[in-house]
Parts: sequence; structure tokens; C-alpha cells
Amino acid sequence: MPTSPSEPLPRLDLTGDLTDLLVALVDVASVSGDEARLTDAIQAALEPLDHLELVRDGDVLVARTQLGRAERVVLAGHTDTVPIAGNVPSRTTGSGDDRVVHGRGACDMKGGVAVQLAVAAALTEPSRDLTYIFYDNEEVEESRNGLARIGRERPDLLAATFAVLGEPSNARVEGGCQGTMRAEITLTGVAAHSARSWKGSNAIHAAGPLLERLAAHVPAQVEVEGLVYREGLNAVRIAGGIAGNVVPDRCVVEVNYRFAPSKSPAQAEAYLRDVLDGFDLEVTDVAAGARPGLDQPVAADFVAAVGGEPQPKFGWTDVARFSALGIPAVNFGPGDPGKAHADDEFCPTADLHTCRDALLRWLA
Amino acid sequence: MPTSPSEPLPRLDLTGDLTDLLVALVDVASVSGDEARLTDAIQAALEPLDHLELVRDGDVLVARTQLGRAERVVLAGHTDTVPIAGNVPSRTTGSGDDRVVHGRGACDMKGGVAVQLAVAAALTEPSRDLTYIFYDNEEVEESRNGLARIGRERPDLLAATFAVLGEPSNARVEGGCQGTMRAEITLTGVAAHSARSWKGSNAIHAAGPLLERLAAHVPAQVEVEGLVYREGLNAVRIAGGIAGNVVPDRCVVEVNYRFAPSKSPAQAEAYLRDVLDGFDLEVTDVAAGARPGLDQPVAADFVAAVGGEPQPKFGWTDVARFSALGIPAVNFGPGDPGKAHADDEFCPTADLHTCRDALLRWLA
Repeated sequence: MPTSPSEPLPRLDLTGDLTDLLVALVDVASVSGDEARLTDAIQAALEPLDHLELVRDGDVLVARTQLGRAERVVLAGHTDTVPIAGNVPSRTTGSGDDRVVHGRGACDMKGGVAVQLAVAAALTEPSRDLTYIFYDNEEVEESRNGLARIGRERPDLLAATFAVLGEPSNARVEGGCQGTMRAEITLTGVAAHSARSWKGSNAIHAAGPLLERLAAHVPAQVEVEGLVYREGLNAVRIAGGIAGNVVPDRCVVEVNYRFAPSKSPAQAEAYLRDVLDGFDLEVTDVAAGARPGLDQPVAADFVAAVGGEPQPKFGWTDVARFSALGIPAVNFGPGDPGKAHADDEFCPTADLHTCRDALLRWLA
Repeated sequence: MPTSPSEPLPRLDLTGDLTDLLVALVDVASVSGDEARLTDAIQAALEPLDHLELVRDGDVLVARTQLGRAERVVLAGHTDTVPIAGNVPSRTTGSGDDRVVHGRGACDMKGGVAVQLAVAAALTEPSRDLTYIFYDNEEVEESRNGLARIGRERPDLLAATFAVLGEPSNARVEGGCQGTMRAEITLTGVAAHSARSWKGSNAIHAAGPLLERLAAHVPAQVEVEGLVYREGLNAVRIAGGIAGNVVPDRCVVEVNYRFAPSKSPAQAEAYLRDVLDGFDLEVTDVAAGARPGLDQPVAADFVAAVGGEPQPKFGWTDVARFSALGIPAVNFGPGDPGKAHADDEFCPTADLHTCRDALLRWLA
């Protein structure tokens, strides 16, 4: 059974078996908005560690070394999950290195939190100063996001040379993230009764060339610091017409442009306007991407310690918040991102060990 | 002020000034569903006429001669109007032949009703047997239409060689009416996160070639019995997409095909499927058109009596109900159809006289 508020706070063993730690984390349910108890448990486990200074702010917990190192690295992870679907408490299958933890949050992203906690306990004198951030409300609307709130209210807590977000990435480095822009294109015409359609001009028909252009568009593949980002430009919504006997005078197409992190929002808009030249376009929403930062020495060390080929991250993630603060950031965590939010999400022990060992190699 | 139910039934003078008769008809408000009082007044005016046999069925009133003529002609008009917009009671402007009646229903179509009543009173021994039909609920949904109800329940009352509907047509003959067909074309794709759009297939983009084909389509101009019908094929609605970050897997386009009355619904569907070959099309609604019937001797006599060049009717009207019963039918009535339903609708005295005189020449 999941622990309940009336029970004693579960004790998290940060120096024991890493898979058992993940089991314990999953079994403290922490759907978005309900992270307090898990945050309390993490705080209780970190408080005895003399090498860490703790700052609790709402359900954000920051733990820092203060060793005066030349560089500072952030290891960040969110503690909330999407709603439970009969998958808490956790269950495990297999044994030893083949053991797998199944349950809500195992993949997204209590596996990453387990790794960060193990590293926090193990590294009393890391080669770089470290800031561990455990934050709430990542799975819900932007306005509730704990990391965003700290970025607004306490940006000093995020100061760093480099940041690693423990989101699931199959224990490989996924660098940066692409930006995303939405725009509406409005096609206009002249309304008329459809029985005398030659008196009108059909705005839905006018969308044909736009859709053809979108279909024919070959998205760029942009290399940024050695990673190749595949862009995308898609109509995501279309709506037009008011009645079955009226030639419509308006049709609106919403497009979503996912752009490489080497482009600023202004450059992305200029590109979009160029591709869709001749159409009446209004940008409605934009979020900048994040460069992977792999051209920095601290990141090169990181990649060398992790091994393997870094991959680009296509979806937008919280690494962009660090990027907006001028801090290069990557995603690196256990679990398959394709299983995030799935009812059968899980995390393999091997991924936990891979991530922990890589971080220890890099930061010892 | 409009008459109210508590007042005596207004007396309609069928043999006096035709414009005064139209004023009296407009001043008895008769918005759809509220035609009883006007129908009562018409019935009271026709009852003294010995040459007419009356049948009242709900708010449908049928008046017939029974002279044993070889041909029978229907003159039909609806008594209801769209809602009043501060335009009842009527007002008149000008004088003599330039007098104009302004008010709800003046154009659509109490002008036509006034003409039919004047003809009914004047022609005691017409050259063809005549059936006058005054019916309710033309301006609302099909299921309430009085003419449709009589067609289902008492088709014998509609039996005729030819029918003239007194809908406004600028006092010119508008022959038959076009058919109308609606169909939905569904485009499908494969849903994907828009950050990894190459894993999906965009159903909205797939609508591009369909819209291009519709835009490029040149509607046929079909000659039927000397009248040229301009067809039309238009997208009237389009909808696709479920979220701003999802490559959509479904997009639906509704098209409206207006087809010449020489085509059956089956032929219209075959044509539509041919034009839109390769797309997944479902016909959702169809109403057959009506041939003008101008190749019949009775119609030729009618056109000769009216004078001028008959015009094709593009919009669907109740003439199609007669056509469905095998009765050729035309629209012929006073007033500009472009003013139907307009708040400033009106009817010129000259049109009233033109229509009345033409019918008298033809039927005397």
C-alpha cells in the first residue's frame, strides 16, 4: 500500500541498494500538487549529510555543496507524477542487474531522483560544486511549475556552469531541447449562398496552397554542437465554415513549428514567415529551445564520463529554463522516454546504475 | 398596429386595389407557426366565391375550380414569414404605379399571395382548372412544411399539369431549381507528438490536394429546357486537429454540390465521386432539383403570356416538391429575391400588376 499522511515518514536509504531506493520513492504517491510528503522524506534523508546546505521553499528542495569550486553543476529532477492508474505501490520483476521497477513515476522520473539522491549521499567532496534541486508540479500547467517559480523568485539558487535534468533518456545524454512556436494563418474570402457560389470566394479552398506548401516543406536538420536536431512544421488544427449552404469567408489554420535550439524565437519567426510567405500569419505562442552546451569543457568532461553518443532532444523540456538563464543543460536519466506517462511505465536497474556510475565518474 | 386575435378578422378585398390587398396581408403578422389568423382571413375572403371548392387542412388552405378542363395548374404560396424586425405594420412609399409596400413578408411572399388571391377572384371560368394552395411553415425546418405535409397526406390535392410558385423572382419566370447534395470527405493520417512529427502522418496536410482540386474545379453550366443552370461545388466546412502539440490523424471536409435539375441524385453522386476520385467520401444529405418543365405546351403558353426570357433558379425551393410528384414547376412572383428576409424587404406595385396581368392573360 502507498504510505499515507498518518503513517510515519518513510525512511529513504540513500547509500543502500539503488533499486530499493526507487521502490521506496515510487511507493510515496506524489501526483502533481501532492508532493509535500515525498519532499519531506527527501529532506529528512538529506538533513544528516553535513556536506549539503538545504533550502526548502514550498515543495522545492535545494541541497548544495559550498566547496568554493570553480564550477557548479545543477542536478535537477521533479518529484511529481501524472495521476496514478492502479500502478502504485510499485512491483518489481527480475533480480540482480535485471531487476525492473514497475509503477507510476518509476520512469518519469523517480528513477532520476533516486540516482541524484544516491550521488548526493556518495559525493562528499565532489570535483565541482553541486546543486541538487527537487521540484514540484512539472507535469501540470506552466504557472504551477516549481522550477519556474524558483527561477523567478530565487534565481540565485539556480546559478551554475552546467545543468543535468534527470528526465528519462535511456541513460544516454540528450542535449538541449528544440523550441516550439505556434502561429495562426487566417484565410479570407467573400461569403455567398452556396447556390450562387460564383458571387463569393471560398476561404477554405484558399487553404489548399497553404496545406500543399506545408506538406511539401522539408524540415531542416540542424547541427548544433555536434547534435542534429530534426525540425518539424505541422498544421495542428484547421477550422472553417459556418453553415452547410454558405461559401465560407474565413478559415484558420494553426501551425506548430519545432525549431532547433540554435535559432532564437525571432529567427524562428523569420523562418516561418519566409516559408509561409504570402499568407496572413500571427504568432500566438513561443518557447525558446535550449542549446546542448556540449561545446563547454564541463560538458565535454560529462560526455566523456557517460560514454556513448549524445542525442538531440526533440520535445521541449525544463532544460530550456536553464538555457534561458544562460546555463547549458542536458537531459540524462534512467528509463525509456517512450514509457513516460504510460500505465506500464517502468525503470530497469541497469539504467539506474549506468546513470549513477557516470555521474560519480564525472563528479568524483 | 398589427391586428390581434381579439380583434375582428380583417376583411380582404380581393377585387379592389392590389397594393391595398398586399398592405392588408402584411398587417396580419404571420411568423412561421402563427399563420392561423391569416389563413382564416384568406378562407373568409374565398368562401363567397362559388367557383371555388375549399379544403382546409390545418393551416393549409386549398381552393380549386372543378370545371373538367383538360389541364390543371397549381398556384401556390406560403403564408408564413421569418420573424418581424420592427417592420410590421407595413408602410408604403410613392403613389400610383410607383407605390411600394415595405414590411415583413412584402417580398417573401405575401406579394405572391396577393396576386394569387386577385387571380382567384377574377377568374371564374379559367381556361385551365386551377388549384390555389396557401400553406404554412415554409421558412422553418422541413418537418413542419405545410406543402410537404399535404404532399405526404393528401397528394391528390396537388395533382396538376404544371405548378407556379409565387416566390419573389422580380416578376420573371425562374424555372425549376437546382438540386443540393452534401458529403463529408475524411482524410486520415497517423497521430504523433509534433516534436517528432516524422513518426506521424498529417491528416490536415492531406486535405491540401482535395482543396486544390475543389478550387480548380470548373462547375458545369447545364442547359435544361433552354435554361442554363450554373452548378457549384464548395467546401462549406473543414475541421481537424485535437491539440497544439499533436500531428492530427483526422480531418473532415464537408462539401456542398449544387447540381442542375437534369441530374438525378444518383447521377449527382456519381459525378461528385468522379470529381473527388481517390478521397473517402460519404454523402450525408441530398435533395433532388426540379426541371423547369418549359418543354410542355402549358408552360410554353405561360412563358408566352409572361413575356421576357425565363431564368434558371439556382437555390432550392418548394418547386422541387412538385417535381418529385412529376409536376413541372416554376417560380414566378413579385419582389426581388435578394430582399427576401432582409429587414428592409419591400414589393413594388409594378411587380404585383405584372404578375397578376400575366397570369390573367395565360389563364383567362
